[in-house]
Amino acid sequence: MCSGRGAELRSAPVHVITAAHAIHEFSATMEARWRVPAGATVEVHCVDGSGNTIRGEGDLVAAVDPDHANPATGPIHVEGARAGDVLAFAIESIDVDADQGFTVLIPDFGLHPTRVREPLTRISTIRAGTALVLDRFEVPLRPMLGTIGVAPRTGAWNTLTPHDHGGNLDTADVRAGVRMLFPVNHDGALLAMGDAKAAMGDGEVCSTGIEVPVRVRGRLDVLRGRSIERPMIETESEWMTLGSAADHLDACRLAHGDMVDLIAAAQNLSWEDAYVLSSIVSDLRVSQVVDPLLTVRCCVPKHYLSGLWPA
Amino acid sequence: MCSGRGAELRSAPVHVITAAHAIHEFSATMEARWRVPAGATVEVHCVDGSGNTIRGEGDLVAAVDPDHANPATGPIHVEGARAGDVLAFAIESIDVDADQGFTVLIPDFGLHPTRVREPLTRISTIRAGTALVLDRFEVPLRPMLGTIGVAPRTGAWNTLTPHDHGGNLDTADVRAGVRMLFPVNHDGALLAMGDAKAAMGDGEVCSTGIEVPVRVRGRLDVLRGRSIERPMIETESEWMTLGSAADHLDACRLAHGDMVDLIAAAQNLSWEDAYVLSSIVSDLRVSQVVDPLLTVRCCVPKHYLSGLWPA
Repeated sequence: MCSGRGAELRSAPVHVITAAHAIHEFSATMEARWRVPAGATVEVHCVDGSGNTIRGEGDLVAAVDPDHANPATGPIHVEGARAGDVLAFAIESIDVDADQGFTVLIPDFGLHPTRVREPLTRISTIRAGTALVLDRFEVPLRPMLGTIGVAPRTGAWNTLTPHDHGGNLDTADVRAGVRMLFPVNHDGALLAMGDAKAAMGDGEVCSTGIEVPVRVRGRLDVLRGRSIERPMIETESEWMTLGSAADHLDACRLAHGDMVDLIAAAQNLSWEDAYVLSSIVSDLRVSQVVDPLLTVRCCVPKHYLSGLWPA
Repeated sequence: MCSGRGAELRSAPVHVITAAHAIHEFSATMEARWRVPAGATVEVHCVDGSGNTIRGEGDLVAAVDPDHANPATGPIHVEGARAGDVLAFAIESIDVDADQGFTVLIPDFGLHPTRVREPLTRISTIRAGTALVLDRFEVPLRPMLGTIGVAPRTGAWNTLTPHDHGGNLDTADVRAGVRMLFPVNHDGALLAMGDAKAAMGDGEVCSTGIEVPVRVRGRLDVLRGRSIERPMIETESEWMTLGSAADHLDACRLAHGDMVDLIAAAQNLSWEDAYVLSSIVSDLRVSQVVDPLLTVRCCVPKHYLSGLWPA
């Protein structure tokens, strides 16, 4: 809109991906609904995890058809992404698209499944960068995507479950300012996303944060030269590998095992020395403990993996 | 040493607790070796987790008698501490007392037990606030205590294992600047500590950080009015509850369950509403995954528990 004298600036087109189509499972055979070129900036519109059906404290999650929970907007085919490549999604912004969000307790679910006797819904109001929780607690917004993933290599995973393709990772670092990497298992990658929260603690202990619809803006690129098995996140200061499994230690082994291999490659170390170094400089962090596969991320200061992928 | 005109300052005595006596288990019947008044400042000298026996890369941890690993200096009887009280240890400083530290790989131990075929020792040199790891990587020192605890209510736990009394918590937040709280299970509390690291990542994945001897300075106080079941940490910005169990989710339930109860008490909320709030504002974090009971901490911004204990 603004150009200096003599300069000619061209605004890159933004590909708007509406919430008109969403998936409820990530499958190896799912079909693209949108198609964008590599290098495209997209604006993805996402309804909340209930499909925008929970509006008041009288609306219970029990009324949400489980087969239609966690709708993920997409899939988006990224042109030029071929099996074996890496899909990069640099998230520029996640804007909360509502003036309220919901948090629920569900009997037989969450970290304390037997202690919740009755379903409960709490609505938080959202205003000026803050959520007002329980009408009393002002919590700063930290918008994030709970569900984001690509077509898995084989089979299908519903959008409530995380695995190597991504999916319901419920990781608070899936936020504006980071770059996510995904394995490309099928041509076009087939990205989809949703289940956003205005704020959520590590663990997502009761099974929800403050669930909200959002508009996500970011850039899609295809990286070549090094394949990955599972999602990764590059933040301002760290690289993170993500692992999801039924058992916590198995999830730790996936995330940390990937990290040791990457440190060894980036620093030309033996596996054993990379393991020693990782015990000193990498952190295992809880993403979520309820989905029901658990998700863990292994995090290192960025310079330990420098050179593996271009910025 | 320095006083303004007319002022009269009295230096408080520091009680020096030497490493001349250490325990290898925390037991309900262990006897005090030192005795200090409540309010005392102590300087506790600790050998490293190998009893200062690993000095070079030819020294293998296999040569350390497991019954004598992780010696903990103490026990210290704090006068006036009675069963049902809370013992507070405000850590003022942890000074590394060596110019090197060790990290080991142990077959059948650590996060990847079957991948380590041979024992391995790596020595890091320590100078000017930095550890030089693998002769190449400059890692900032973050000194911490791996093992710290009090007499358990019943039975005994070796110093390699964490439980409700504390013990081998291997939690990087046990560092200078924090205040630790412990349940007092027996008169005098009977505090002991050791197993320090110059630096360690969350997880302690290979079973060690950079293991070093240290001198720890801090103040011991007795708090009354609210009992606790398990250790807690107060940092500059957060309160943390700690849980240790064989299963990760059980450790999460202990740490998070304590936190929900504390939030409910501090904020006068129902258990259900405290649970909802905690899912938005508390973080579950990995302390260690190898000891072999796992330790998790649940962390909230400090103001959510304000008023429960005096500063």
